[in-house]
Amino acid sequence: MELKKVAEGKTKIVYEYSSSYYLLRFKDSITAGDGARKDEMSGKGTLNARTSAVFFKLLEENSIKTHFVGVYDDNTLIVKRLKMIPVEVVLRNIATGSIVKRLPIKEGEVFDPPIVEFFLKDDLRHDPLLNYSHLRYFKLLTKEEAERIEEVMMKVNVVMRKFLEEKGLILYDFKLEFGKDENGELIIGDEITLDSMRVRDKDNRIYDKDLYRRGEALEVVRKAYEDFLNIISR
Amino acid sequence: MELKKVAEGKTKIVYEYSSSYYLLRFKDSITAGDGARKDEMSGKGTLNARTSAVFFKLLEENSIKTHFVGVYDDNTLIVKRLKMIPVEVVLRNIATGSIVKRLPIKEGEVFDPPIVEFFLKDDLRHDPLLNYSHLRYFKLLTKEEAERIEEVMMKVNVVMRKFLEEKGLILYDFKLEFGKDENGELIIGDEITLDSMRVRDKDNRIYDKDLYRRGEALEVVRKAYEDFLNIISR
Repeated sequence: MELKKVAEGKTKIVYEYSSSYYLLRFKDSITAGDGARKDEMSGKGTLNARTSAVFFKLLEENSIKTHFVGVYDDNTLIVKRLKMIPVEVVLRNIATGSIVKRLPIKEGEVFDPPIVEFFLKDDLRHDPLLNYSHLRYFKLLTKEEAERIEEVMMKVNVVMRKFLEEKGLILYDFKLEFGKDENGELIIGDEITLDSMRVRDKDNRIYDKDLYRRGEALEVVRKAYEDFLNIISR
Repeated sequence: MELKKVAEGKTKIVYEYSSSYYLLRFKDSITAGDGARKDEMSGKGTLNARTSAVFFKLLEENSIKTHFVGVYDDNTLIVKRLKMIPVEVVLRNIATGSIVKRLPIKEGEVFDPPIVEFFLKDDLRHDPLLNYSHLRYFKLLTKEEAERIEEVMMKVNVVMRKFLEEKGLILYDFKLEFGKDENGELIIGDEITLDSMRVRDKDNRIYDKDLYRRGEALEVVRKAYEDFLNIISR
């Protein structure tokens, strides 16, 4: 069957599937610096499709709505059709990454309650931070919708932190993207993988894409993604 | 009388005055690029003290609380003692300046309703944008306080726009800083001058510090500040 492509991003392709569903295919590409660096890491598509499936199932079991319907093949998920909002929503438990450069915050500072940030998906402008006022002006989200998303982020954080903690892992931060279903309801879309979250263990081993950002060999990155999938699948 | 200095910034000095009041002295300095460029423009201190007095009186007449008490001398105001919050609050009616570089917004786009933004006063980091989550983490403002400030910004905008419009002038944007009085009430502090707002007339003549930012001669900048003060004093 020839699948009709709906959209293609740096690491995923969306295909038509049925009137209600899309297929979401994970590519083997790994990128950093808003696409400035790019490599192929064989097996990554499969690892990320499986990792996403684990987390989407976890959220669904905890009554948090996602676009996840099921697995289609090794690197492809069946997902609900959503009208995606081009915004990355980030929740931070522990400071690392862009926030320690942007603000007077030190690596490792603990955010309690967590910090939530909205960024416009705009590689050219390096994904600028948005406040409620910008979200409204760009007709991306009303203030009420942004507040609703913040609540969902907090719920997701509680569920994912607990799940990972029981496996000896620490969730530093994660990014989600949201879309609206045919009823206008805000639902989690996109992916939940080591490309979109930061996870360390108690010995401070890094499992996430920071390895790639820091220039580690692709073999080291793949090993971390594999180990992580094994740990969360146990 | 020897005045005791409480604080000194790029363009103003705060002195002790009485148990309830400070003196706020406007220097002749003019700066741009977070202090990267700096010049002395003789007479600017007086122009900015007077301009601030005009706007603070206008706001007080419209039941909006400011730190303004009265005029002390040519370049010095008497102001209420406030515990200042190191945040710049910007309201934008028409797009120009940093926002058109930071976001996919074109010069001259009209914001209706206006956009309000909070920036941390941090020259080293070029005054980064803050959302409610950051404001709370840094213990600068609770969400409720930030929302209260947004309401005050909207009120100030209505009053200042109308006042300037009647004089043939268009208010593009302005910046205010807030502080807390001894009762913890949020009150407008700092200054309201051509350093802190953008004003054009119907022929698109620029009156504000953008002239200096664009490299115009100091004489041209001073003439604009003088003309503006004459217009708003009529």
